[in-house]
Amino acid sequence: MSDNRALQRVNILVNHILQSSPTSSSNLSLTREICLQYSPPELNESCVFDVKEMRKLLDGHDVVDRDWIYGLMTQSNLFNRKERGGKIFVSPDYNQTMEQQREITMKRIWYLLENGVFQGWLTESGPEAELRKLALLEVCGIYDHSVSIKVGVHFFLWGNAVKFFGTKRHHEKWLKSTEDYVVKGCFAMTELGHGSNVRGIETVTTYDPTTEEFVISTPCESAQKYWIGGAANHATHTIVFSQLHINGTNQGVHAFIAQIRDQDGNICPNIRIADCGHKIGLNGVDNGRIWFDNLRIPRENLLNAVADVSSDGKYVSAIKDPDQRFGAFMAPLTSGRVTIASSAIYSAKVGLATAIRYSLSRRAFSVTANGPEVLLLDYPSHQRRLLPLLAKTYAMSFAANELKMIYVKRTPETNKAIHVVSSGFKAVLTWHNMRTLQECREAVGGQGIKTENLVGQLKGEFDVQTTFEGDNNVLMQQVSKALFAEYVSCKKRNKPFKGLGLEHMNGSRPVLPTQLTSSTLRCSQFQTNVFCLRERDLLEQFTSEIAQLQGRGESREISFLQSHQLAEDLGKAFTEKAILQTILDAEAKLPAGSVKDVLGLVRSMYALISLEEDPSLLRYGYLSRENVGDVRREVSKLCGELRPHALALVTSFGIPDSFLSPIAFNWVEANAWSSV
Amino acid sequence: MSDNRALQRVNILVNHILQSSPTSSSNLSLTREICLQYSPPELNESCVFDVKEMRKLLDGHDVVDRDWIYGLMTQSNLFNRKERGGKIFVSPDYNQTMEQQREITMKRIWYLLENGVFQGWLTESGPEAELRKLALLEVCGIYDHSVSIKVGVHFFLWGNAVKFFGTKRHHEKWLKSTEDYVVKGCFAMTELGHGSNVRGIETVTTYDPTTEEFVISTPCESAQKYWIGGAANHATHTIVFSQLHINGTNQGVHAFIAQIRDQDGNICPNIRIADCGHKIGLNGVDNGRIWFDNLRIPRENLLNAVADVSSDGKYVSAIKDPDQRFGAFMAPLTSGRVTIASSAIYSAKVGLATAIRYSLSRRAFSVTANGPEVLLLDYPSHQRRLLPLLAKTYAMSFAANELKMIYVKRTPETNKAIHVVSSGFKAVLTWHNMRTLQECREAVGGQGIKTENLVGQLKGEFDVQTTFEGDNNVLMQQVSKALFAEYVSCKKRNKPFKGLGLEHMNGSRPVLPTQLTSSTLRCSQFQTNVFCLRERDLLEQFTSEIAQLQGRGESREISFLQSHQLAEDLGKAFTEKAILQTILDAEAKLPAGSVKDVLGLVRSMYALISLEEDPSLLRYGYLSRENVGDVRREVSKLCGELRPHALALVTSFGIPDSFLSPIAFNWVEANAWSSV
Repeated sequence: MSDNRALQRVNILVNHILQSSPTSSSNLSLTREICLQYSPPELNESCVFDVKEMRKLLDGHDVVDRDWIYGLMTQSNLFNRKERGGKIFVSPDYNQTMEQQREITMKRIWYLLENGVFQGWLTESGPEAELRKLALLEVCGIYDHSVSIKVGVHFFLWGNAVKFFGTKRHHEKWLKSTEDYVVKGCFAMTELGHGSNVRGIETVTTYDPTTEEFVISTPCESAQKYWIGGAANHATHTIVFSQLHINGTNQGVHAFIAQIRDQDGNICPNIRIADCGHKIGLNGVDNGRIWFDNLRIPRENLLNAVADVSSDGKYVSAIKDPDQRFGAFMAPLTSGRVTIASSAIYSAKVGLATAIRYSLSRRAFSVTANGPEVLLLDYPSHQRRLLPLLAKTYAMSFAANELKMIYVKRTPETNKAIHVVSSGFKAVLTWHNMRTLQECREAVGGQGIKTENLVGQLKGEFDVQTTFEGDNNVLMQQVSKALFAEYVSCKKRNKPFKGLGLEHMNGSRPVLPTQLTSSTLRCSQFQTNVFCLRERDLLEQFTSEIAQLQGRGESREISFLQSHQLAEDLGKAFTEKAILQTILDAEAKLPAGSVKDVLGLVRSMYALISLEEDPSLLRYGYLSRENVGDVRREVSKLCGELRPHALALVTSFGIPDSFLSPIAFNWVEANAWSSV
Repeated sequence: MSDNRALQRVNILVNHILQSSPTSSSNLSLTREICLQYSPPELNESCVFDVKEMRKLLDGHDVVDRDWIYGLMTQSNLFNRKERGGKIFVSPDYNQTMEQQREITMKRIWYLLENGVFQGWLTESGPEAELRKLALLEVCGIYDHSVSIKVGVHFFLWGNAVKFFGTKRHHEKWLKSTEDYVVKGCFAMTELGHGSNVRGIETVTTYDPTTEEFVISTPCESAQKYWIGGAANHATHTIVFSQLHINGTNQGVHAFIAQIRDQDGNICPNIRIADCGHKIGLNGVDNGRIWFDNLRIPRENLLNAVADVSSDGKYVSAIKDPDQRFGAFMAPLTSGRVTIASSAIYSAKVGLATAIRYSLSRRAFSVTANGPEVLLLDYPSHQRRLLPLLAKTYAMSFAANELKMIYVKRTPETNKAIHVVSSGFKAVLTWHNMRTLQECREAVGGQGIKTENLVGQLKGEFDVQTTFEGDNNVLMQQVSKALFAEYVSCKKRNKPFKGLGLEHMNGSRPVLPTQLTSSTLRCSQFQTNVFCLRERDLLEQFTSEIAQLQGRGESREISFLQSHQLAEDLGKAFTEKAILQTILDAEAKLPAGSVKDVLGLVRSMYALISLEEDPSLLRYGYLSRENVGDVRREVSKLCGELRPHALALVTSFGIPDSFLSPIAFNWVEANAWSSV
């Protein structure tokens, strides 16, 4: 087992400590000196690559601005600064009630506003301004998901809805005042009875030509607006999503602006508001419920970029097809999935940085009689738990950056691709975050249960991501349906595949070698080939199964439902391949050197752990039993090779110490009586 | 696809509703009547078996006493009764601060005490008394994990330690006063520096023959007692685990009784106590930290069932080997793993009852143009998410009951088997609970985020189970090491296997049919054969790999660490087979009839989903690719066949409505404005 460096390290350490401390077990505990001491991981771990350079790659953009806002938050007393073990930490006090968390979250946002953080967020445009905004939002979310969600609802849901669904009259009236928080916006789309299925919402708006007003009403309890962030306490205005009925015809879902509170915070007439109550996380966000009692709003409050109603009550839209109209309304909301995917990965980074730093200072059990205890991360099983998740987090960092880039550079032509990619990435990245946090929580043992240590708390804070802005399972089905449509369309028109990364299907089916050596397994071409083969074959299987079912008389919808397992496998295969491509692209751009070398190891770990974890490789015969044995052995080897870089890899996340938690540093001192 | 009954149901429903409501989509939302209505699942679902009989099987024992304590809690205002949608619910208010949750938890325990719940818990003995106690504790945990943990620490850790580690003098002095809560006990084993590795604790106790006292000290910060439930606020006494140094020789870990607070709640001299702080769950439990500053306790306070120190300071023990002595100290603690495993399954039941009831009243999307929305549980993918977890929960119910039975009937001879089985069951059942709750949380969408709806909150409340009383990964390794030792011992002595369920290895290797029909897959003999084959082969592979590594000069410990993946596969194979056996045994005892029939379906689902989810079947060639395709298809068929029984199966859990949550019932009414 010469390749298992970790165990060599254990053995060396054991010998070293046994030689230097010849005390017998019988009096081990008698002297104070041999009590457990904290030793900073930096003392024992080396770093072979430039951490700052790696950090720039991972953050991708606006590193200086990120550091600026990290600093802003650390300086203020509003961010719950506390000293633990001689270090300053900032993170919310999660022992506060919902009411307290909401108030302090709003105060934190005021502070950021006063310090100019939100300047230009709605009044500046272009890819650079958008990226900067995304970077600042990401850092808000690293401090506390409630801050980023509350800011996100105001700017990305309310603000962007005004910007994208509205026209000049709305922009002039609302954008600057939103940026200055003179109005506080919320976004009333979801109802008690309808979440992911927006088309089914039951709120009804009619038009009264005599007063030139729209009349919004909540016809029944299931139509109450639900989960509306900001509605319970702070928002003054909302976007209302509603069926628009004109002269007895339902024109489908449209968006309107309604004021719900006056500037003093009193709820407006014809509006009822209730609280959604205490949640398992995100208690800094005041989610509320809204009922509209024939609320009258001016005709101009229809956000009319897609469709309008004339003063005499005629419905006008350039888009005749209601489905396309609905799609146009939903398209700008993609920003939600972009920010969710990206923030999920930053959350995973906090978890991994904490768990890996702790595993480099915490010991448990010894492997020789009376020998010293072994560092957690020197156990092969502990490496196997954390290092593959670390590699995935790296790969998904690049994926999130790529998603942001295609989003900020979007054109009408790229809308479909953005929808598909953002759906897949949102689902896979948020599931990855939840899994990573759970593994990190267990890997740090009981310490993960303390909210102060964040790892466990983040699970509750980020859990909602797997179902909001589209249930992950529904999103994955949408990915597969889109691939299906693309496949059918290309085959029908006998045209080559173009877009969605399917171009590889124009070539011949990749042939994999029967024998997999270590160098083959680490070769990017081989990795790409397996991922392409899997995607291609699953797409073919899926379309063929759907065709069979339709051939037996089933409707297309029913056929999709029945083929859900193939659809899930395909959605995953598509997304994992797209992620692999992003880390390969990042690697390709680098000059030769240690950053590129280590990133190559990380990429191979990402590729091989994805194969190792996917039973479909064996199930559908892409790899033989011998092959998957080789993959598993290679993953173990990579664990050993990544182990020496673990500290540097999490340091490269660029998250300041103060945004991690006490167990990532001197947890003995942090728990000392002198700190009580 | 004639076997997919669920889709037939969808089609029938679609036709039914389309016929009965010929309104066109254009004015669907104009009339109030067609708004979404709650329809109780009971209206549409049939029940073909006797739910009461099934409930008796699942609960296994003390059904009447369970109902009594459910009733006690529902009657009292202390349990946070509230009305939602016309029904009464009881569950803690999780928006309370830690301090408030601790106080109300203690008050709830006083109430249970006053109502005689704890009568005989320490003063009565025998299997029946023990089972009754376990049943009552389980129901406490269904209300709130904090209540059961706080009661469990007092009775099962403090109380049982006095009972099992102590002798007559301790029993007379402490047992009755513990039962009456005159003393409030806690259990100081874990330290900041040592959790799962109890042997490594650093607290030191010496003996002073001049005063006939032990002197307990915390020699350094890492030796502070940590996570001690009850220590922060309420406990008056504690068991202290400490290294015992007699005349310069460390005799290993021993347990002592120390008073830490007087009856007025003042902390005693030479004791320092600090809080562990806010947690992601279990905030009703006052976890604290304790430092001992040369605390002097009478010689009689050594719990001396295993070893004693004479008045003149001589160490006396009938067990000479320190390892065996340590083992004797730990053995009675198995009760912790028994109660954890069992309560994990009741938590999963709360999650599943809620998610399945919700999925029988919540609709989303339609499968035909303008058609009605489909019930969540009529989607094949939703069935696939929840019904296999339901079947596993059933199987694990029987497993937990079996574990309790072997525990209450324990003899010195069964200690090893109990240790191995309880380790495996604790790990597998608690992981299953976490996974089930996560799936249920996502399956109910955003509603799972509200703490009032429990599903999401339970994740935080029960998360600690995967690492306390032994980290799950460590426990699984212990299972495999025990199997290894058994294997080596039998082979060396050329004796047949006896115990740990390994008897099947005395026979010939099972041969599986190459073609798997539906009836083969559902046959208990086939299922047993696959599970046995997998266990047998993995055990052989594991021992052979260890032998190879040792042959290359590695130590046994290092070899185990390197073979961790095979060890994990083996631990899982052992535990899953043991679980299968318990549901097969339960089924075998039943007379022919509908309960037996449905339980047979559930058992087949448990067996097949375990195979479907385990990649080692393909990896190691127990099943062919065609075989696993057959397994997957059979799981889908079973989903369709279990779907009609879903409501009855969760009703059989016997959990009163008031202990579930509003989304399990009329969630429209519960959210109505009239309820605000």
